[in-house]
Amino acid sequence: MNPIVECIPNFSEGRRQEVVEAIADTIRSVEGVRLLDYSADKNHNRSVFTFIGNPKAVAEAAFLSCKKAAELIDMTKHKGEHPRMGATDVIPFVPVRDITVEECIELSKKVGERIAEELSIPVFLYEDSATKPERKNLADIRKGQFEKMAEKLKDPQWAPDFGKPEIHPTAGVVAVGARKPLIAYNINLDTSDIKIADTIAKLIRERSGGLKNVRAIGVMLEDRNLAQVSINMVDYERTALYRAFEMVKMEARRYGVNIVGSEIVGLTPMKALIDVAEYYLQLENFDSNKQILENYLLQ
Amino acid sequence: MNPIVECIPNFSEGRRQEVVEAIADTIRSVEGVRLLDYSADKNHNRSVFTFIGNPKAVAEAAFLSCKKAAELIDMTKHKGEHPRMGATDVIPFVPVRDITVEECIELSKKVGERIAEELSIPVFLYEDSATKPERKNLADIRKGQFEKMAEKLKDPQWAPDFGKPEIHPTAGVVAVGARKPLIAYNINLDTSDIKIADTIAKLIRERSGGLKNVRAIGVMLEDRNLAQVSINMVDYERTALYRAFEMVKMEARRYGVNIVGSEIVGLTPMKALIDVAEYYLQLENFDSNKQILENYLLQ
Repeated sequence: MNPIVECIPNFSEGRRQEVVEAIADTIRSVEGVRLLDYSADKNHNRSVFTFIGNPKAVAEAAFLSCKKAAELIDMTKHKGEHPRMGATDVIPFVPVRDITVEECIELSKKVGERIAEELSIPVFLYEDSATKPERKNLADIRKGQFEKMAEKLKDPQWAPDFGKPEIHPTAGVVAVGARKPLIAYNINLDTSDIKIADTIAKLIRERSGGLKNVRAIGVMLEDRNLAQVSINMVDYERTALYRAFEMVKMEARRYGVNIVGSEIVGLTPMKALIDVAEYYLQLENFDSNKQILENYLLQ
Repeated sequence: MNPIVECIPNFSEGRRQEVVEAIADTIRSVEGVRLLDYSADKNHNRSVFTFIGNPKAVAEAAFLSCKKAAELIDMTKHKGEHPRMGATDVIPFVPVRDITVEECIELSKKVGERIAEELSIPVFLYEDSATKPERKNLADIRKGQFEKMAEKLKDPQWAPDFGKPEIHPTAGVVAVGARKPLIAYNINLDTSDIKIADTIAKLIRERSGGLKNVRAIGVMLEDRNLAQVSINMVDYERTALYRAFEMVKMEARRYGVNIVGSEIVGLTPMKALIDVAEYYLQLENFDSNKQILENYLLQ
């Protein structure tokens, strides 16, 4: 038994490279943690880090990176395409191997409590760690964004799970929780009309009548002058990537709009892409556990 | 350094399950070898085994399985859709990890020599182990099949690399060699007209003007009353699976024929299917080495 947890914190900084590097260095400094990937998006003004390791080390790196972000990011000055509510916006813990979701929930609660106590940043538990149904979905917690969060916390319904109901003046609030692997998947359209991306996002996402396990918003990529449907696939085993891709393609057709490309931000489990290949090749009787060579070489 | 070789011998028996199981047991009996997969095809009357392990153990298992097949299979009585020339038709060695192609070539020569000496079965070295250009391609060696092999061997140009120029009366001849990973990939058409599958096979394969690194024949699936384009993808890194799939689809259209499905026989490296997903999702800037979680967990 060699439990491995993945942590994928999102920070509200995608433009100042020195801040992104400082957070990366903080994560790398923790023994037992391996920083696998990090990427900063200028349009979103947001960065995503992925690291794995033993649960204790991953918890330490999550806390320290949140502390570093609170030191270097001032949310009162933050602008970006992506909704956000804190310097560290969200800290998810994902079971990778030899660890249960329940153990990841416990881990998320310990980290959340420590952030509230030592950094005075209010913490919401979300996803599988949520204490109320309305706190499961990050979008519901984040609604109103940083600018309206101080007022939102006064509502007893939105009292934080840890910490006082007062936002940190510059670091805002943070969501912490355990969840299944999430794939950040964006689809770029050959239009500069953000309204089309917004409309398609609404049509394909679960909350407004679209695909289950799909969350989506329209985002403008200023540097490419393209509108993007920015998607979170929150359960790729039930709702595969190709279904979101084909649904975006189908809805875009009404506007004479085509897909110019798509992108996966950060990491993905292999299986999510194998499922895509199986669909498009119309594979019969394929057993990925048995027929993929690498599955026999995994630690 | 923990070198791992893959071996994928093909045997001319896909109907008598007891023979297939006897070969499987022989492979399993060798310490240091892991039998990953085996499948028997009744139409082809052929079975494919895949095992991995340290080079010495894999060489031993390859030899012993060839010996077992020579004991149990009589080629004078063999009928099947797939071309064949021996009880053991072909024994390829593929580098998986910490071993070079050159070392696999040496391994193949040792096994070939032993088969000729101890079992009196003539051996052709093929693919990267080939001693002449015209012996690189298995189809060239196998041309004429078992029935015409006795005569073919009398031609000095086709003298075997190991053993006398006389076929084994019931086990025929065998090809042994090192090669890159090969993906056995079949595409099923919604027609029972084998001529259409034959024509498409010719159009898509390298030797008659089609795609480089693609070998293909038409095969009739009697039990489903379907014609199949049976393909070997011999260098999936240069010629990806989706290209064969799309080319078959395109050529089939002329006859009003559609693809009903495709199948991968045996094992495939993960990357071959990731490439397919990348193409159909139009993925931008995807780095499979860095963005696939499992790549960080490989032994």
